[in-house]
Amino acid sequence: MDVHALLFDTYGTLVDWRSSILDELAAFGRARGLAPDWEAFLADWKACYRPGMDAVNRGEAPWTTLEEIYRRRLVDLLAARAIAASAAEVDDLTRVWWRLRPWPDTVSGLARLKRRFVISPLSNASFAGMVRLARFAGLPWDCVITAENARCYKPRPEVYRTAVALLGLSANEVMLVAAHNYDLAAAQALGLRTAFVPRPLEYGPGQTSDLRPEGKWDVVVDSVEELAAALGC
Amino acid sequence: MDVHALLFDTYGTLVDWRSSILDELAAFGRARGLAPDWEAFLADWKACYRPGMDAVNRGEAPWTTLEEIYRRRLVDLLAARAIAASAAEVDDLTRVWWRLRPWPDTVSGLARLKRRFVISPLSNASFAGMVRLARFAGLPWDCVITAENARCYKPRPEVYRTAVALLGLSANEVMLVAAHNYDLAAAQALGLRTAFVPRPLEYGPGQTSDLRPEGKWDVVVDSVEELAAALGC
Repeated sequence: MDVHALLFDTYGTLVDWRSSILDELAAFGRARGLAPDWEAFLADWKACYRPGMDAVNRGEAPWTTLEEIYRRRLVDLLAARAIAASAAEVDDLTRVWWRLRPWPDTVSGLARLKRRFVISPLSNASFAGMVRLARFAGLPWDCVITAENARCYKPRPEVYRTAVALLGLSANEVMLVAAHNYDLAAAQALGLRTAFVPRPLEYGPGQTSDLRPEGKWDVVVDSVEELAAALGC
Repeated sequence: MDVHALLFDTYGTLVDWRSSILDELAAFGRARGLAPDWEAFLADWKACYRPGMDAVNRGEAPWTTLEEIYRRRLVDLLAARAIAASAAEVDDLTRVWWRLRPWPDTVSGLARLKRRFVISPLSNASFAGMVRLARFAGLPWDCVITAENARCYKPRPEVYRTAVALLGLSANEVMLVAAHNYDLAAAQALGLRTAFVPRPLEYGPGQTSDLRPEGKWDVVVDSVEELAAALGC
């Protein structure tokens, strides 16, 4: 392999969005004397992710950042539960997606990989959201690339192609690192190298998807630290 | 001022391209027993910068990275002096633009500013070139934004607008920092804040341009360290 750059899916692969957001929702509720089923609330919130992006990818909606997709759903979910929140409060709560804790191996693993490779996220998040998350979580990126740079969402080929072109590399010189098989399959179909890092607790203890590799990925490891070791860093 | 992010012109403003490249050209020549007038050579090379970008901005040329513009000119300049170089050698010499020394105040000043502001380049360089330069020079960016993200060159408004949009901010929440008055004028016309950091030695001891502010810039300082102090970092 002649890999020069590593692209990382971020939500789930590098940061534990679920437990981070459940903590923030619980704190939001406590401040208001509310204790709804936040796990169900978050599941409902996250459920807008794929349909919202697919509408953009199919051309049924204009380009809309993931942040805006999440914000609209949040407004609906709060209204459905009769939870009052100002626009500023809704903004702040939407930005929990900027304040997610990295998995324990993430930051140290990225630092090792950065010594030898250009490292960048390739997330469906907004560009600004990924920049802010990097500052919050201490992700030591060389640069930030997201779906917003292609104005459509993974797994559309344009997203991966835009990233490879911005890096000035060939597809086979770039590796996608992800906890999700669908993402790796799309990248591999375009000639990128692939590394699978399963995150069996991304969706909590009952997770049933993406526990095992479902393709012939170049590398399969259990953490970013193990990826660094596997790539000789 | 309610500034959240700082965009930095890079060539000249943060790195001393001239002395860095003269050193590399001299080494390239020594290895071949050649000692042409490298100052004149570099002046000829740099002279393709504005016309090459203007051809793209006027729609007379398709989108072409600055690297490719420099590479073509380099091929011509070497041929005109009958200096033989392989394609790989031309590639390597073109990439001197990825190996430029920062001014002494650059890295420490950026580190101070990063504590409080999102910091990014806004250069006419290729995205990949800016990523590689950051690694070489130790520029601690939060993200990288260049003309390539807008597929046209400064001072076209699309370049500044693309940067502001990617950062998820309003124009008046973003400050452009540059050693060149034309760049600041274009940014100010769109509502961005401006900081002028003159670099009187960018073009060597005989420099006559951009020695003084030619507009009402929000901040005028002599170094990135002074900018950090002026902005309370």
